[in-house]
Amino acid sequence: MSILISEVGPRDGLQSISAVMPTQAKKAWIAAEAAAGVREIEVGSFVPAKVLPQLADTAEIVAFARTIPGLTVAVLVPNARGAANAIAAGAHKLTLPLSVSETHSLRNLNRTHEQVFAEARQIAGMIAELPAGERPHFEGSLSTVFGCTLEGQVADATILHCAEQLMAAGCNEVGLSDTTGYADPAGVKRMIKLVRGAVGEAAVTGIHLHNTRGLGLANALAALDAGLETLDSSLGGLGGCPFAPGASGNIVTEDLAFMLDAMGLETGIDLDKLFAVRSILAQALPGEPLYGFVTEAGLPLGHKQMELAA
Amino acid sequence: MSILISEVGPRDGLQSISAVMPTQAKKAWIAAEAAAGVREIEVGSFVPAKVLPQLADTAEIVAFARTIPGLTVAVLVPNARGAANAIAAGAHKLTLPLSVSETHSLRNLNRTHEQVFAEARQIAGMIAELPAGERPHFEGSLSTVFGCTLEGQVADATILHCAEQLMAAGCNEVGLSDTTGYADPAGVKRMIKLVRGAVGEAAVTGIHLHNTRGLGLANALAALDAGLETLDSSLGGLGGCPFAPGASGNIVTEDLAFMLDAMGLETGIDLDKLFAVRSILAQALPGEPLYGFVTEAGLPLGHKQMELAA
Repeated sequence: MSILISEVGPRDGLQSISAVMPTQAKKAWIAAEAAAGVREIEVGSFVPAKVLPQLADTAEIVAFARTIPGLTVAVLVPNARGAANAIAAGAHKLTLPLSVSETHSLRNLNRTHEQVFAEARQIAGMIAELPAGERPHFEGSLSTVFGCTLEGQVADATILHCAEQLMAAGCNEVGLSDTTGYADPAGVKRMIKLVRGAVGEAAVTGIHLHNTRGLGLANALAALDAGLETLDSSLGGLGGCPFAPGASGNIVTEDLAFMLDAMGLETGIDLDKLFAVRSILAQALPGEPLYGFVTEAGLPLGHKQMELAA
Repeated sequence: MSILISEVGPRDGLQSISAVMPTQAKKAWIAAEAAAGVREIEVGSFVPAKVLPQLADTAEIVAFARTIPGLTVAVLVPNARGAANAIAAGAHKLTLPLSVSETHSLRNLNRTHEQVFAEARQIAGMIAELPAGERPHFEGSLSTVFGCTLEGQVADATILHCAEQLMAAGCNEVGLSDTTGYADPAGVKRMIKLVRGAVGEAAVTGIHLHNTRGLGLANALAALDAGLETLDSSLGGLGGCPFAPGASGNIVTEDLAFMLDAMGLETGIDLDKLFAVRSILAQALPGEPLYGFVTEAGLPLGHKQMELAA
C-alpha cells in the first residue's frame, strides 16, 4: 500500500516562526526533500506579504518547484485573489482553508462561512476556465474540525454543512485539519466516517495533524486505519498555527516516514536522505528548534528500509 | 471498555536516573497517583542496593503501598532471590524480565535463557507454597521483543520458545516489552498475535512501551486494537533502560491517560489530579526533565473528562 506524505513545512512551518528563510534556502530544502522521494510539498501561501513576510517569495518558489520532475507543487490560498496568483504562478494544487469554527474563521481569515463559500465558488470558476490539462487540484480544508481553542467542539451539523458547501462550490475534495491539536484516534476515525458519509469517500483522502498533545502519530495511524492515504507533516516538526493560541507543531515528517516504512507502507522516501535535509533547516534558521525522535535516537539496529522504486 | 494503566515510574523511571529520590517523596508520589485513580503501580525492584541504590528502599515502599486500598503493588524481580524478598514484603505482582535477545540477557541480567527459565521455575515453586489467597501474580516479561540494540531483530522462534518456557515454568502470563523503543504499530499487532498463538490469548494482556522513536502512543493504540488491556507508562516520561544503549523514555502516563480518556476508554483516572502529581517529582528531583505534551498544552477547551466511578 502506498501513502502520500505531503510536506507542509515550507508553508505551515515557516509561517509560524518569525525568522524569514532566505529564498535560496527554501529552494534547497524543497529540492533536497523532493530528491529524498517526497512527492508533494506545500511550498507557500499566497497571502499579502505584509501579513506573512516569511512567504512573500511564494510565486518564485512555485516557479522553481515546478521544475522538479514528479513533484506536486501545493500552495495555500486564503481567498480568490490568492488563488488567481497561485494559478498564474502555476501551482498544481490549491488548498483553501475554511475554519468550521466561525469564530476562528473570522479571527483567522476575517470571513464568515458564507463568504468563504463564495470565495470557493469564485476559485472553482477560475479553474473551470483553464484548459483541461492545466487545471490545478482544488481542496477545501476543514480547519479546527476536531475542535477550536475559541469555540471548543464544533457541532457535527456545522462541519457537514461546511463540507457539503465546499464540494457544492466546486472543490475536488475536502481535507480534515486538526489545526489545534485537539484530535484523538477515536475522534479521527469518527470524523472521517462522518464527512465521507456526507460528501463521499473519494472526496476525503487527506488529513493535517498537529502533535500538540502528543497524539499526532497515533492520530495518523487512526487515519490510515480509516482509509486515508495522504498525511501532512513538517520536517523537523517546524510549524503550528499562529492564529490558534496554544496550537503548535505539525507532526514530524521524519518520525511519520519512519513509522510508515517500519509498518511496510510505501512512501517512496529514502529515510537517510530525508533526515539529511534537516541540516538545511538548521543552517538557514539558526536557533530555531527542530523536533523529531527518530533522528535523535537513530534507526533501529538492522532496520531494513523498504526498497524504493528506481 | 476499561484499560489498566500500570505506572512504572517508581521503578523504570527512577532506575534510569542517577538521583536518588527520598523514600518519603516516593511514598507521596505513589499515594498521590493512587488517589488520582491509578490502580497498579510498579513501586520498585528487588535488586541488590549496590546495583541500583535508587531502589534500595523497595521493601519499605512495598509495605507502604500495600496500605493503599485497591492498589495492585507490582515489583520487578531479577531472580529467585529477589522474588523471595518481594514475597516477604508482600508484593501483589512479580515481574521477571527475560530478554529474548540472549546477548542482552547476559549483559543485563548476566544470565542465559536457560538460567532465567530455572529462576522462573524456582519463583513459581515459592509462590505455589503460599496459601491460596496470598499468592502474588507472576508475570514473565519478554524484554527486547521488538528488537535489541545489540542483536537487532530476534528470531520469532526464539521469542516463542521464551514465551512457552516461561509459561511452562509457571508464570501466570507473559508481557511484551519494547525495551529499546524499536516497535512500530504493525509489529506490535503482529507480535501480540504471534505470542498469543503460542501461549493463549489469556496469557498475553499487557505491553511495556518506550517512546524512543516517537511511536509510543501509536504503538499503544495498536496494542489496544489487538486486544491488550494493560499499558505500562511513566509519569513525566521518566525512565528508560540503562542497560540498552540508546533506549530512553517510557511513554508518558499523562499523555496516555489523556488519549484513552479522549477515546472514551475508561481508566478510572482523574486527569487533573494525575497532572498535579508531577509537582511531587519536580520537587523531589530538581533539574530532572519531565516530559509530556498534554501537560504542556493543557486539555482541549471543553474537554469533558469521563465520569469516574465513585
